[in-house]
Amino acid sequence: MKRFELIQAIFNNQLPREPRQVTATAFAPINVALCKYWGKRNNELNLPVTSSLSIAVPTKGTTTTLLWAPEQTQDNIIFNGKEMDPKSSFVQGITQFLDLFRPQHKWYLQATIKMNIALAAGFASSSCGFAALSLALNNLFTWNLEPYKLSILARLGSGSAARSLWTGFVEWHRGTRDDGMDSHASPLAEDWPALCIGLLSVCETEKPISSRKAMQHTVNTSHLYPYWPEKVAQDLVKIKYAIDKRDFSLLGKLAEQNALAMHATMLSSQPPICYFLSDTIAAIRRIWTLRKAGLELYFTQDAGPNLKLLFLKKDITAIQKFFPSVEIVSVFSGCI
Amino acid sequence: MKRFELIQAIFNNQLPREPRQVTATAFAPINVALCKYWGKRNNELNLPVTSSLSIAVPTKGTTTTLLWAPEQTQDNIIFNGKEMDPKSSFVQGITQFLDLFRPQHKWYLQATIKMNIALAAGFASSSCGFAALSLALNNLFTWNLEPYKLSILARLGSGSAARSLWTGFVEWHRGTRDDGMDSHASPLAEDWPALCIGLLSVCETEKPISSRKAMQHTVNTSHLYPYWPEKVAQDLVKIKYAIDKRDFSLLGKLAEQNALAMHATMLSSQPPICYFLSDTIAAIRRIWTLRKAGLELYFTQDAGPNLKLLFLKKDITAIQKFFPSVEIVSVFSGCI
Repeated sequence: MKRFELIQAIFNNQLPREPRQVTATAFAPINVALCKYWGKRNNELNLPVTSSLSIAVPTKGTTTTLLWAPEQTQDNIIFNGKEMDPKSSFVQGITQFLDLFRPQHKWYLQATIKMNIALAAGFASSSCGFAALSLALNNLFTWNLEPYKLSILARLGSGSAARSLWTGFVEWHRGTRDDGMDSHASPLAEDWPALCIGLLSVCETEKPISSRKAMQHTVNTSHLYPYWPEKVAQDLVKIKYAIDKRDFSLLGKLAEQNALAMHATMLSSQPPICYFLSDTIAAIRRIWTLRKAGLELYFTQDAGPNLKLLFLKKDITAIQKFFPSVEIVSVFSGCI
Repeated sequence: MKRFELIQAIFNNQLPREPRQVTATAFAPINVALCKYWGKRNNELNLPVTSSLSIAVPTKGTTTTLLWAPEQTQDNIIFNGKEMDPKSSFVQGITQFLDLFRPQHKWYLQATIKMNIALAAGFASSSCGFAALSLALNNLFTWNLEPYKLSILARLGSGSAARSLWTGFVEWHRGTRDDGMDSHASPLAEDWPALCIGLLSVCETEKPISSRKAMQHTVNTSHLYPYWPEKVAQDLVKIKYAIDKRDFSLLGKLAEQNALAMHATMLSSQPPICYFLSDTIAAIRRIWTLRKAGLELYFTQDAGPNLKLLFLKKDITAIQKFFPSVEIVSVFSGCI
């Protein structure tokens, strides 16, 4: 019921009615966390234990087109050209999110979702998905919600979606309120055109355990989880400092450390959670070898086997040579 | 200088003189830690931060034959049939250990060392090495030292060598004294003939970073290290309970968790230490898949990429089928 109260607060007790238009579209980018979000203090409201910080990849993400469908008796979800089974967990997640805005179930939508990254493979697909859906709803219903309120709405779909409403560096402030009204993201006024990200795909099959479950299991069973919040608190300050000073070595080092600390905490869950595949370890070892040889290359890894490489524009040719399959993505329109 | 005082205490101020015989031989087994030793509170004396518990593999280890060599001007070390370079770190480690007993350098030895496991690959080679050397010295000089004193001597060569003086389950008590006289191992009066160990070799090349250095680096830089001692304290109690109750599932689970917690702590060092190779991860994933399918199989991993499998005698055929390269070793003369 806390969700219902939060929605009431966002809409000043005036829940959305019929839209003024029949269709609306929105795009939201994936975001790569440099300081991770891992663990909730409230499961219903997706309130995080810690703040977190990410960088958006504006060319990768989700475009969602909503169509008002008064004649339908249920939502109709088309994902990358394919109509999805209404009983699938994918569709259930979306309809449950839409239910937040229609407590009496008086309307339905057709949602056409196009995503140019692999689903549920640690590429932040649910983040950009719920961010795009929130933006598209805002457009369809002409809510004109302030961005921070959209960030709160997106958060209800998937925690890290709170960060996918902006480009550039974005910080999700954990907040302290029980109602979740102060737990939303905001962009950092920082530009870093030389910074590049490479998506290194190791395996694009769906992960065996969702982030949501993995995170909860870690919080419940890892003897190391109690020490994660203080690590994040320290890393966040240092990462913002590195961004402010444009100190790439420091940023890369901190992002890599933060990711490894998260995976270390998961490895200590009971039973353990391990998102490393053997190819993940091979790639990590390659990165370390290259860095030892002088290439300024770092990685981060989310709840999946794939890696995100961090490097500077000047090293694009070298990165392409050593990782021919890497997809280099622009971050500040500075990369490719 | 603390080492010198410790030696004086062990020998009641009467350091060994000339031996009564010209040659002596001793064997010491490798030991597989079920509750790991990781981190020293005193580097000079190899005093551990925590207690630890291992099981010996009596068919694997080191046989060392010492020959009194009064005509020589330096020690002469023959390892697996090959005369070693006196300047190598291998020989230096042995001569420095021998120096503990000859402050005036008045005598030299020829040591013929035969080891039936890979060197410095996480198979506890230095443990059995220093344990066998301590035992052989005790025989050569007819010291007749009590076993706990030999455990202390072996510890000065390599911490976990303190545990390699017995077969069966062995606990190394951390001790509390500054002089190290209470930090030694002792055997547990427990027999478990159904318990088996499989050595699963992933890579037998020498590890890139020694246990000694890796441990120190973890203590100095891992934000998770402060939480390791309390984990060990809890695991040790539970592991002894599992042994006492012959509860194999519990023992396997605890040993695996303890190893993963150690590797998690290392992964959080700065820069990170990662003993996983891609083949290590592949083997770990295989173990987890088989366990999920009902095979009671667990692993532990030390400071190297290789794994030690833990299982019961009844599953030997299955283990051999799924891991054709595994070397199954007897633990309580009950395995093969």
